[in-house]
Amino acid sequence: MHGELMAAEIAEQPQVLARILADGRPHIAAVGRAIRARAPRFVLFVARGTSDHAALYAKYLVETRLGLPAGLVSPSTMTVYDARPALRDVLFIAVSQSGGSPDLLEPLTRARASGAITVAVTNAPDSPLAVAAEYHIDVLSGPERAVAATKTYTAELLALFLLVEGIADRDGAEAASLPRRADAILARADEVARLAVRYRFAEQLVTTSRGYNYPTAREAALKLMETSYLVAHAFSGADLLHGPMAMIHRGFPVIAIVPAGAGGAALAPVIERLRHLGADMLVVGDPALVERTGLGLSLPDVGPEALSPILTIIPLQQLAWHLARARGGDPDQPRGLSKVTETW
Amino acid sequence: MHGELMAAEIAEQPQVLARILADGRPHIAAVGRAIRARAPRFVLFVARGTSDHAALYAKYLVETRLGLPAGLVSPSTMTVYDARPALRDVLFIAVSQSGGSPDLLEPLTRARASGAITVAVTNAPDSPLAVAAEYHIDVLSGPERAVAATKTYTAELLALFLLVEGIADRDGAEAASLPRRADAILARADEVARLAVRYRFAEQLVTTSRGYNYPTAREAALKLMETSYLVAHAFSGADLLHGPMAMIHRGFPVIAIVPAGAGGAALAPVIERLRHLGADMLVVGDPALVERTGLGLSLPDVGPEALSPILTIIPLQQLAWHLARARGGDPDQPRGLSKVTETW
Repeated sequence: MHGELMAAEIAEQPQVLARILADGRPHIAAVGRAIRARAPRFVLFVARGTSDHAALYAKYLVETRLGLPAGLVSPSTMTVYDARPALRDVLFIAVSQSGGSPDLLEPLTRARASGAITVAVTNAPDSPLAVAAEYHIDVLSGPERAVAATKTYTAELLALFLLVEGIADRDGAEAASLPRRADAILARADEVARLAVRYRFAEQLVTTSRGYNYPTAREAALKLMETSYLVAHAFSGADLLHGPMAMIHRGFPVIAIVPAGAGGAALAPVIERLRHLGADMLVVGDPALVERTGLGLSLPDVGPEALSPILTIIPLQQLAWHLARARGGDPDQPRGLSKVTETW
Repeated sequence: MHGELMAAEIAEQPQVLARILADGRPHIAAVGRAIRARAPRFVLFVARGTSDHAALYAKYLVETRLGLPAGLVSPSTMTVYDARPALRDVLFIAVSQSGGSPDLLEPLTRARASGAITVAVTNAPDSPLAVAAEYHIDVLSGPERAVAATKTYTAELLALFLLVEGIADRDGAEAASLPRRADAILARADEVARLAVRYRFAEQLVTTSRGYNYPTAREAALKLMETSYLVAHAFSGADLLHGPMAMIHRGFPVIAIVPAGAGGAALAPVIERLRHLGADMLVVGDPALVERTGLGLSLPDVGPEALSPILTIIPLQQLAWHLARARGGDPDQPRGLSKVTETW
């Protein structure tokens, strides 16, 4: 069957989350405590592709839950322009499924030499990145064979959440219900399959969200691009109002990720504006809003907003999978891609 | 004439750049010296839309030319999630043409209260943002009346360049030739007009670059979205290889911004890959590469790479303008947009 690998890996996510909570948590908590003792004052992330969306999620956590300034490193400043920033007091976190991309290894190695506390979050404990970092966090996902990353994404999100909780000297108990919640979402695959059909002939699409789920909008767009070859463009709700809104015409497909919570509430005016323009809206999240919009996937049970991105992405992974197949593609083998992307 | 305002403001850019170099530089240098004396260790930027692209450019400058870690703040962490980060030793720079957006004022005000050194870079010295910041840098562009920002963008780039040079205790002399170089580029409007015609029926487009000109790719995509309603999607060359490359098919329109220099050289493998896939390539920049690709706009004289974004965006502003008109639109009045975007 086309897409067998990706389907299996999507379905494996509750298990992987449970494994991280059971087997990964003690080590992650220990790394968190060790970092806390060294009192970093700034946090930098370096990542690419799907892992970059996990890093963006973690940046929100660091800003809101640790109260520390944070940034995403542009790898090219080091690999192309030879920058050597002063990184004392900096926590430098590289996120990569494979741990194999040279354009992450070089910045991490430089960061460590410049005095940063370095952490690698990977699914490959023997990888160059894992070895080069002072601390390594294994996301315990088992081999990921589909080209489009799914289970390693949600695993990275959870590992980063637990790491931030560890640094904040909290135990991350809120995360305990994630495997059960993920199971409940997976069980609704048929609804997602029915929604996927209507995008059979869509040529472009916008995804949008705000706050913690902005990375979900980014990751959903990437899954759609890499498996369904749809030109999918993610915007934070605020950025969408700064210009790109002009291109939205009647019938333009928009997927809004709006779980109940402050981020969802902040997106309400954007959704009103999109509806006013006659956009074809699909809402994923808040049941009340799905009801009002008329089309969507209602997710009544995603728990605290800060953890919701680990769940809201799942139906969007399924959507990309179903759409790829509806379009005659093989979600496991997107044209022109390979599993480890070597950039520089 | 439709688009009169935007055309006039594009044409005004050499003058505005000259004004900043002559009248703005002493104050910017003084602000730079004052900041240098306080030895910030981390730099944060906050901005939206076009100004966010100027902030991204400045982030590259800070990382490579100051050797300091830097980040772009997600305003929602403060405005939606009430984050109160610890900002001692942090230089916090807000960039905004109007200085009027509440979602920048709130973070800047909090940053100042949290001990950051605050700077506002605006075109509106009496604006709330300018007043709230400890230091204000006026980009001296005169009133900008077209909805799509052009002259304030290049003015922000130059002001930020001079600020970074000031902090580095350098005089920014490299920038002296910018007005002349900008004039030379503007004189080639006819070539750009001819290139614009072929996108008359394009429905989507990808822009790409690497390093200093990645913000140029982002800003070009935004101009195309807001004036021509084209679904234009910007990618750094490295990110394009991580997945989105799958959606590029034979004939897919791609504009690559590749001035001669290290950033351009790093993009070469991406361009090869795109050509191999049969993408419809237009190269803006390096004459040798334009020659090889067959279609493009050769820019032999953009000076040092770190300053080239102030010039490479100009033909892309012109392209958006011509294309908007070719499509029967009014570049001055994009549907659904207003000059000051109030987000929260």
